[in-house]
Amino acid sequence: MTDMPMITLGQGMPDMSRLVYGCWRLSDSADSSPQAVATKIGMCLDQGITTFDHADIYGGYVCEELFGAALARDPGLKQRIQVVTKCGIMLQTPAFPDRRVKYYDTSAAHIRASAETSLRRLGLDVVDLMLIHRPDPFMDHEETGAALDALVDDGLVRGIGVSNFMPWDFDLLQSAMKHPLLTNQIEISLLEHGSFTNGQIAQLQMKGISPMAWSPLAGGALFDASNPAGARLSGRLAEIAGEHHVSSDAVALAWVMAHPSNIMPIVGTNNHDRIAKIADSLKVGFDRELWYELWVLAEGKDVP
Amino acid sequence: MTDMPMITLGQGMPDMSRLVYGCWRLSDSADSSPQAVATKIGMCLDQGITTFDHADIYGGYVCEELFGAALARDPGLKQRIQVVTKCGIMLQTPAFPDRRVKYYDTSAAHIRASAETSLRRLGLDVVDLMLIHRPDPFMDHEETGAALDALVDDGLVRGIGVSNFMPWDFDLLQSAMKHPLLTNQIEISLLEHGSFTNGQIAQLQMKGISPMAWSPLAGGALFDASNPAGARLSGRLAEIAGEHHVSSDAVALAWVMAHPSNIMPIVGTNNHDRIAKIADSLKVGFDRELWYELWVLAEGKDVP
Amino acid sequence: MTDMPMITLGQGMPDMSRLVYGCWRLSDSADSSPQAVATKIGMCLDQGITTFDHADIYGGYVCEELFGAALARDPGLKQRIQVVTKCGIMLQTPAFPDRRVKYYDTSAAHIRASAETSLRRLGLDVVDLMLIHRPDPFMDHEETGAALDALVDDGLVRGIGVSNFMPWDFDLLQSAMKHPLLTNQIEISLLEHGSFTNGQIAQLQMKGISPMAWSPLAGGALFDASNPAGARLSGRLAEIAGEHHVSSDAVALAWVMAHPSNIMPIVGTNNHDRIAKIADSLKVGFDRELWYELWVLAEGKDVP
Repeated sequence: MTDMPMITLGQGMPDMSRLVYGCWRLSDSADSSPQAVATKIGMCLDQGITTFDHADIYGGYVCEELFGAALARDPGLKQRIQVVTKCGIMLQTPAFPDRRVKYYDTSAAHIRASAETSLRRLGLDVVDLMLIHRPDPFMDHEETGAALDALVDDGLVRGIGVSNFMPWDFDLLQSAMKHPLLTNQIEISLLEHGSFTNGQIAQLQMKGISPMAWSPLAGGALFDASNPAGARLSGRLAEIAGEHHVSSDAVALAWVMAHPSNIMPIVGTNNHDRIAKIADSLKVGFDRELWYELWVLAEGKDVP
Repeated sequence: MTDMPMITLGQGMPDMSRLVYGCWRLSDSADSSPQAVATKIGMCLDQGITTFDHADIYGGYVCEELFGAALARDPGLKQRIQVVTKCGIMLQTPAFPDRRVKYYDTSAAHIRASAETSLRRLGLDVVDLMLIHRPDPFMDHEETGAALDALVDDGLVRGIGVSNFMPWDFDLLQSAMKHPLLTNQIEISLLEHGSFTNGQIAQLQMKGISPMAWSPLAGGALFDASNPAGARLSGRLAEIAGEHHVSSDAVALAWVMAHPSNIMPIVGTNNHDRIAKIADSLKVGFDRELWYELWVLAEGKDVP
Repeated sequence: MTDMPMITLGQGMPDMSRLVYGCWRLSDSADSSPQAVATKIGMCLDQGITTFDHADIYGGYVCEELFGAALARDPGLKQRIQVVTKCGIMLQTPAFPDRRVKYYDTSAAHIRASAETSLRRLGLDVVDLMLIHRPDPFMDHEETGAALDALVDDGLVRGIGVSNFMPWDFDLLQSAMKHPLLTNQIEISLLEHGSFTNGQIAQLQMKGISPMAWSPLAGGALFDASNPAGARLSGRLAEIAGEHHVSSDAVALAWVMAHPSNIMPIVGTNNHDRIAKIADSLKVGFDRELWYELWVLAEGKDVP
């Protein structure tokens, strides 16, 4: 087995695994009992995947609780994992029948309440990393920044980051905080690689920050012949996969990880066979020509 | 009556009213006599609206003079108001028969001459705030910056700002000035809210600068059923207006003012009934859900 | 003859001529013998054009060698010229039959090897300016920056710059270098003037850096009636050219040079008549109105 590389996002932070398991589909599984979730956690740990990504809203506010039930069943797991969660999206669900619209809330009151609720649902004393889920055009950066700093100072979370932020969103929030923002979790895959050229990744590289990547497999579109880019890519991905005796998934993840910015991909499959093979992506090396070969297939045209 | 909030844009600046009366349509009125303009000014003052927004070119270089004639008729008004004006656009009008094209001029000579002309037309010794009207792709920032600093140092204006600038335009000009740029006057309304996400407002929030908003009612398109976003919004705006016993205008202005960046909307109607009710917008409060409800109607789709 | 303005890009750099001769078409000429190339160099020097722009890949990796052969034939030329070259693009050519795709390589090993190869092909001990040819989304800025610094420190090149970089690409690379980036060579012409408004030129103005302009004549499209903007512009260009007794080319180059950012256009014609008249562009002055008149014709609409 290839050793799992570990990432230190900041001072006082526990090491996190380069590959992260994403819990946004946890409640979609036919069996989401504590036992079943603990099995998934165990399959991840077997590969060195120790970091688990959540958000308050995943599964319609359900996934954190399913995860917490598994931890309650097997409390020893808590010492072996790191937990990321998010706040700031107000979802319309049956649990909130009066909510007229999906919206964002980065107020101090909501951030505090959301962190406390996440801790309770997860059954943890502290969350390792709390992210603002989406840039909020209504954000009062002073209020939000102070509320996030307080989460760290009061011991509810170990570190703070953001998700889906543009560079100016990041700088604005950081300007009102004393604790450093530790990551920006953005969509990165062969099919969504705009962040490599629009300044988002450049900002993180300049600050020495590891990005986290959501949907690194583009929700399966990479292998979908009805998607034009998928159609161009799937054959070549399978070829490379064959050379390395891994799945095409692993190749697509390895492509993301090959980037020098030290990206942490989040994989969220419920399929046991696929979970068991996430770490296969560490076996696939990319030289520049191969990396660009897939980039060009994804783009459907040569680089300029 | 709700008290008018006042804004201090910078050191040595007079307080300005949160709501600003815009003079760009002053010459469109059936009656633009000194008496009629003074009446409008008085109606604004009655509501606490003490700040008046001009540009050299408004009304084809006519509005400043109409306003100046009203001040000449009633000189006591000068002590009760603050005046903003702009320079930099060279308009094609019958007064400039040789001008072959509309263009921008941010040269030192033009800025000085334009400021002097504005003072003469307005009949003022000093203008409170002078803005560069548009980013000029031909701008020599060193020359422009020095000319603007000199306007302050020589007492022609109290402060300097810009209009319609992108963040890099703002930073470039500021880099060549010793006096701070005090605002960026941009188009902001329910229908034109790109500045909330493209970095323009974020830059101002980070610098602690109040934006000014032109066309905060989208030129009426907000209430126009033939405009798709207007059609989605107008019913809900009317509903909220009814709850607060104000006009839909007031609700749309309040939406802009609810943003934490402390936006100063500029309203430029000639209609006496509407002028008299501008400050009604101060009566309408927005919580986050309601603010996003209008955002989502304007966008025609949910937030991500 | 108008004196050629000279530009000092940085400390320890030789002065460069405002107008630059571009060598990317050198191998397209019917006669690219050392004699013929030396003739072209001489025609440039006669006009004060002392700076020559190359890239490793021009002519399919051939142009540097053709230029070097001319210098070898007449070594006295070396003391009279400055040479710019570029690295980082890996071209698919018959010389590289195994290359599966065009890609970018900004690795330390490739940068060093490319610089050494360029010196050998050009027959020079030092290149005056080495540019990274394209922003590389796979760039490891620390590695690339250190490799570029080493080129200067080890005496292979006198200075470093970039080409086609966005502001964040520039800032990222600069953050990992001790030597300053001295230029950004971008496409600038009447038909490609986005850099005047998208922050690229603003960044360079703020840093006091002269941009270099590739394709300043838009590859001839400026004078092509089948190009809509060309059709709008060509008549007016010819008119201005007539007033100054120069070619339309000269007017289009003068338009680029009129910008206050001190742009250095690169002209790469093989036509002797046109080469002989490049410096005619220095005879054409632009006032703001004329500059905007051409901008508006290029845009096909008035400025806002």
